[in-house]
Amino acid sequence: MTRSVAILGAAVLPVAKWQTPRDAELQVLEHEILAKVVISAVADAGVERSEISSLAFAQPRPYTQQKYFATFIANYLRLPCTGTVQEVLGNGMTAALAFEAAANDIRLGKSRVALALGINFESAIPAVEHMMNSMRATGDVDFHAPFGFTPISWYAMDAARYIHEFKSSRTELASVSVKNRRHASLNPIAQLRKPITLDEVLAQKPIVEPLGLYEVPPRGDGAACIVLVDEEIAKASGKPYVRVRGRGFFHEGAHQINEVPNDMIALVSAQRAGQAAYQEAGVKASDIDLAELYAPCTIIEILAAEALGLVPRGQGARLCSEGVTSLGGRIPVCTSGGLQSRGHPAHVTPFYSLFEINEQLTGRAGERQVANARLAVTSAELGNYNAALVHVLEAVR
Amino acid sequence: MTRSVAILGAAVLPVAKWQTPRDAELQVLEHEILAKVVISAVADAGVERSEISSLAFAQPRPYTQQKYFATFIANYLRLPCTGTVQEVLGNGMTAALAFEAAANDIRLGKSRVALALGINFESAIPAVEHMMNSMRATGDVDFHAPFGFTPISWYAMDAARYIHEFKSSRTELASVSVKNRRHASLNPIAQLRKPITLDEVLAQKPIVEPLGLYEVPPRGDGAACIVLVDEEIAKASGKPYVRVRGRGFFHEGAHQINEVPNDMIALVSAQRAGQAAYQEAGVKASDIDLAELYAPCTIIEILAAEALGLVPRGQGARLCSEGVTSLGGRIPVCTSGGLQSRGHPAHVTPFYSLFEINEQLTGRAGERQVANARLAVTSAELGNYNAALVHVLEAVR
Repeated sequence: MTRSVAILGAAVLPVAKWQTPRDAELQVLEHEILAKVVISAVADAGVERSEISSLAFAQPRPYTQQKYFATFIANYLRLPCTGTVQEVLGNGMTAALAFEAAANDIRLGKSRVALALGINFESAIPAVEHMMNSMRATGDVDFHAPFGFTPISWYAMDAARYIHEFKSSRTELASVSVKNRRHASLNPIAQLRKPITLDEVLAQKPIVEPLGLYEVPPRGDGAACIVLVDEEIAKASGKPYVRVRGRGFFHEGAHQINEVPNDMIALVSAQRAGQAAYQEAGVKASDIDLAELYAPCTIIEILAAEALGLVPRGQGARLCSEGVTSLGGRIPVCTSGGLQSRGHPAHVTPFYSLFEINEQLTGRAGERQVANARLAVTSAELGNYNAALVHVLEAVR
Repeated sequence: MTRSVAILGAAVLPVAKWQTPRDAELQVLEHEILAKVVISAVADAGVERSEISSLAFAQPRPYTQQKYFATFIANYLRLPCTGTVQEVLGNGMTAALAFEAAANDIRLGKSRVALALGINFESAIPAVEHMMNSMRATGDVDFHAPFGFTPISWYAMDAARYIHEFKSSRTELASVSVKNRRHASLNPIAQLRKPITLDEVLAQKPIVEPLGLYEVPPRGDGAACIVLVDEEIAKASGKPYVRVRGRGFFHEGAHQINEVPNDMIALVSAQRAGQAAYQEAGVKASDIDLAELYAPCTIIEILAAEALGLVPRGQGARLCSEGVTSLGGRIPVCTSGGLQSRGHPAHVTPFYSLFEINEQLTGRAGERQVANARLAVTSAELGNYNAALVHVLEAVR
């Protein structure tokens, strides 16, 4: 029989520019930062260190000088493990895959307590080096990269298409940034917290038209640790916890764009992964109380919310501008502030989504608290939502 | 209920120096090589491509120019997936972890057919660059690397200790290389196939004393694909197949060497992982018919065979020199030729071990065939066996 998985504790580093330049005399050390986050998360869960038997790492950025980081940290933490110690990688989906790997060890009884953890340091890397790396990662080196596709450019094409197809506007899309910054202003771990107006968003310099500076994520560093346990341990703790109720995955077998015709703004992978997750959880999209979506740009939050059935197709931008996805609205989306304002240390971003949902579903979200939050959905993606990994999470109090 | 996992097909690229230098006009392309291996493996299994729903990649070396290789290959193969698409990393254990990730998707019913696959190209990288990368991977950047520990040096210390502790000799250790080369001479996919004598092994230049050139692995490139299926599919195929009968993992929470005293040649992680795998399989070490061990150097094959209970502690080197671990001996070890002769494209090496066991347990090993082979054990490791992942595999005909 497979075991039920729960989140019993979590901790994150506030998203910010923590990384020191390579020639700085004093270096901020990634393993020291991550170790403190792990200690906080384990204390939050209230488990003994001897109970931990699996470590599933989101792989660090290639800039991290210590390679094979997982075994290095297993040593630094002096944590013998009988489950698995591994690093996983899957673009922006990386941390969600690490979460799955940890959850699988619990489902299969290999571990009773597993940590999903990681650190993503990149902010002090020169922009040209980071962009070259990103282009080689998010596009094909033999086809896309030579033509200069930056990661944002893929999303910008979606925005242009959406505005055309559904008679939307950049103003409607930009309302996502205003909403997310308002949420972030209430979130102590968010990177950008000063509220902004719609006019300010529209006045920013273009990054890739029609997307401007405030409609894309800032560069930042982060670290996170989620403590997953066999649900029996969570029950015995007597504390509120979060049950992993459903999971869905879909990879469409494409990398950004290829010769297979598709509806580029349907996010078919998010649709399929969402349906699978809802089915496994035995819920409908209309049952969901809040969502933390992997959405680097405004347009992607709209498209993902539509693909997951949280808002009707073609109406997401308008409904956001009307407050439907704001705190206090019908279906709050990205109460953390989202990738534009909470921040986007890409390889660990899905951990931050899970952290926010854990805060919300255990009633600890303070001024951001969604009243009576019981069911939440998270998404992670890679490419231009070529693949999606969706989780349905449930509050147990 | 968890599902039982079987290996139904496999294919590998012969280990050789395939990689082209960076400035070569014509480049050997990794994705083209890997795709052919995948097609061979899927044909060997006799499954339909539409049945494949998970891809678990051993992460390529950092030299591979296409980053986020998994999603690139999912596109190149046009393989939509509902299970998982991911890359995993864990030093020399990488491919065994990918095998586990694919197996987990089947155990949990997420997939009925899953591919564990990968490519490791490194042979044309300048030695100094490769060594710098290896030292940053196998040692701590802040403690080991500055003192010049190359990967082989860790194993060489084990050899010196073993010779001292058990009154063994370099001659006994060197017999492993002679035996493995003889095995490789019978293996069409092995990198080094010309038989060698004990005198030739002893006459080679030292790499790290007491280990000479023929006692360490050559540099080489490889690619592999293992087709894992729900055992119901394997049964229905009517073909001989291999059942994954037991699995054990242990990470001692150390990275090479630290301040925690330990018996450096006991390979405690291999002992613990082996015991767990035997227990899950319901077998004893004495039931095992053959073994493919992750053993970059002669000494490590001895230590791993002892730790897994295949030969008594302190007697492994002598017993090898007496032919006990040769083809035709009581417990043949590394019938493929092992890492010294079959070759060692590190991130995919454990796939080659599984490939050899699949050949043996399905009766296709030709001149290398172990008569009546029914139960086999494989190991993978990281560091200096700081962690081990052991599988027990069973022939079903």
